Order: sequence, then C-alpha cells, then structure tokens
Amino acid sequence: MIEALENAKLGSSMALDTIIVTLPWNRQGLITAIAQQHDTGQVLMLAWMNKAALEETLATGKACYWSRSRKSLWRKGETSGHNQYIKNIHLDCDGDAVLLSVEQVGAACHTGRMSCFYNQIVDDRVVVVSDKVTN
Amino acid sequence: MIEALENAKLGSSMALDTIIVTLPWNRQGLITAIAQQHDTGQVLMLAWMNKAALEETLATGKACYWSRSRKSLWRKGETSGHNQYIKNIHLDCDGDAVLLSVEQVGAACHTGRMSCFYNQIVDDRVVVVSDKVTN
Repeated sequence: MIEALENAKLGSSMALDTIIVTLPWNRQGLITAIAQQHDTGQVLMLAWMNKAALEETLATGKACYWSRSRKSLWRKGETSGHNQYIKNIHLDCDGDAVLLSVEQVGAACHTGRMSCFYNQIVDDRVVVVSDKVTN
Repeated sequence: MIEALENAKLGSSMALDTIIVTLPWNRQGLITAIAQQHDTGQVLMLAWMNKAALEETLATGKACYWSRSRKSLWRKGETSGHNQYIKNIHLDCDGDAVLLSVEQVGAACHTGRMSCFYNQIVDDRVVVVSDKVTN
C-alpha cells in the first residue's frame, strides 16, 4: 500500500491507519527501527517494532520496541531512564523500516555508550572507538 | 564474540576475521545494514548484507548488499550509477547491524529521492516530504 506513494508528488498523503495495517510486517510481525539523535544526526541503535510497539510509540511520543529476546514490548528507558523522546518518524519506500528521530536521554546503548555503533572496522581490526557516557 | 568488546576500553580491538565469522548472521545468513551520508548525517536506506556482501564492501570500498528479493549480491549503483563510496563502517554492540558512512552518488532510493525515508508520519497521515533528486 505504501508503495502507492513512490511516484506521488511532494505533500501527497495517505491515511496512517490504512498504511499501518498493510506494512510488510515480517514472519515475526516486525519491521526494523533505526533511532537517530535529532540534532547531531548520530545513529544510535537498530531495533525492531511490531504493530503494537509502533502504535504505542505514536501514542506516547516515546520509543517502544519489540524485544526479540524477551518476546515482549520494550519501553526504552523504562528501567534505565534512558528514554527516547520522538521528534519525528519516517517510513521507507517499501515500509519495512522506520526511522525515529529522537532526543536521547543518557545513552542509547546498554553498554553506557551513546550509540550502539562503537565498533569501527579499521583495516583488519575491529576497534572500540567510543567511550561510555553513563554507567 | 563481538560482545567481548562491550566492556573494553577505548582503543581496544579484535581481529576482523575472527569477528566476521562469529557475527550473529540470521537464519538467512544476513545482518542489517544502514547507509548514512557521511557529511550531512542523513540516513539513506536500510538493506541487508550476508558475509560475502560485507567482505566485498570491505574489499572494494563500495557498498554491496544482499538483495532478498533477487537472492543475489546487490552492487549498489551497478546499473543506476548511484554508488555508495564507503567512508567508514561500524558494527553495533551485538554485531547484527552495520552502519555504513558513505558518499552517496545521486540518489540512494530507487524512486530518485535522496533517502528512502521520505514518508513522514504527521498526525493521522503519512506524507511524502521529499522530492526526487534524480530520474
């Protein structure tokens, strides 16, 4: 359904409820979600959302994912306090990925680093290139 | 294996070849790949890589993905000319996602838009918020 917007002009739109039910949820009922810090552009993490997680995120303005390991909704920051406040949300062309522009409180990564992408490939090594910002 | 770096100090490293073979490739042998324009920070697209795609990307300095629909390596730009030249690559904490910082030639999206994330959720609508940069 969202592909109907591929050739649409700037400003064209469709009803969100129509789009959501027709997104290409995978076999586990999930799409991928990228969280990006809104002002610096830093990519913070990649996670997954089911329909309930996306709807809760839209309703509360705080990122809620689906934890594939715990098989439950994962309200980011619920225990750590490291909430992600939503600035805006974009779906990609085929609707199987969502980009969350967020205000990250504390660190996004469970290791205490701002971003989960702290392992840089440098020649034939993988190097830790960022330090912890929280404990 | 890459989790061994979770508590490692800044500058710690491990051998890339050891890391690559132990990444948590999913049942289809894939990890997710995010492409980000290196200078603007714009998130361009989300795609998938198998081991061969990641190794080709590292060897050539140009993004190569795995096309799940065509079930073949997808050398980005091979037909469109819209190559992505790699600036750097980061793996996330558990190694199932890779972030490519790239110089995008032309548009990343097959629709001709710079980024695939052109569908913004605005209240109860999904709105096309970017225009085509190429045909």
